[in-house]
Amino acid sequence: MSQQAFQDCYPEELSHCYGCGVNNAKGHQLKSYWLDEESGETIAHFTPKACHTAVPGFVYGGLIASLIDCHGTGSASAAAYRAEGRVIGSDPALRFVTGALNVSFLAPTPLGVELTLHGRITEIKERKVIVEITLLANDITCVKGSVVAVKMPATMG
Amino acid sequence: MSQQAFQDCYPEELSHCYGCGVNNAKGHQLKSYWLDEESGETIAHFTPKACHTAVPGFVYGGLIASLIDCHGTGSASAAAYRAEGRVIGSDPALRFVTGALNVSFLAPTPLGVELTLHGRITEIKERKVIVEITLLANDITCVKGSVVAVKMPATMG
Repeated sequence: MSQQAFQDCYPEELSHCYGCGVNNAKGHQLKSYWLDEESGETIAHFTPKACHTAVPGFVYGGLIASLIDCHGTGSASAAAYRAEGRVIGSDPALRFVTGALNVSFLAPTPLGVELTLHGRITEIKERKVIVEITLLANDITCVKGSVVAVKMPATMG
Repeated sequence: MSQQAFQDCYPEELSHCYGCGVNNAKGHQLKSYWLDEESGETIAHFTPKACHTAVPGFVYGGLIASLIDCHGTGSASAAAYRAEGRVIGSDPALRFVTGALNVSFLAPTPLGVELTLHGRITEIKERKVIVEITLLANDITCVKGSVVAVKMPATMG
């Protein structure tokens, strides 16, 4: 895709996340994009490794929760920039953390194929964005999740 | 502890989970135990690695979700054996998968200390067990979660 990933627009010092930080060499480095900016739909793709097993042949739920989490906070950041009419990544940074994460595992997620995460912004306020996410494998919905993303405070302590 | 961990009692072929399988050399190998079998309370400890970062100094939410997930399914398995009056690990195996996972991040979880997961069995039926989990760091509750664990079907396809 020609767009820059949301996570590639995070400030350097906030790009260490194991799930999506470009500065975390050991992490998943998930990349999220607009699928349709107008309607608030986002997309990400990820292919789990063989070690990301639950039981043989299926993806471990913790990884799925992680992908939903990072696609949710990334989508929230992009949506907040859009709501302010600002270019994503411009200062001051709009970075979100997860307040709540809900995941429903509807069908076992097969290992060995690329997964697709579809996000949809369903609520946006200044300090809180809600993102509903569907995870598909082979075009079948395996998991649904929602992320309540909260604007990151100036200090985390 | 003198008890054997719940996950160490899983059948060989169901011990590949990235979060808790003894046969997954790259995974987290979480170990869960009874804290009080009588009242249905369980415990696990885990020290995240430096790479498990969200933003510098704090633990990545995806790892926390993973730990809650595996402590939940492990606790469910132990509770199901207890309900049947059977020794954990005896055949036929009682292994659970996650139907739903809900996580509320109440305070940032500091990196660099051992985390404690307290589980409490709140509902137990033949095919479904609900486990409420609290995650503490430095004796402070940072995260609360619940796992709806569903008895693993004979085949996952």
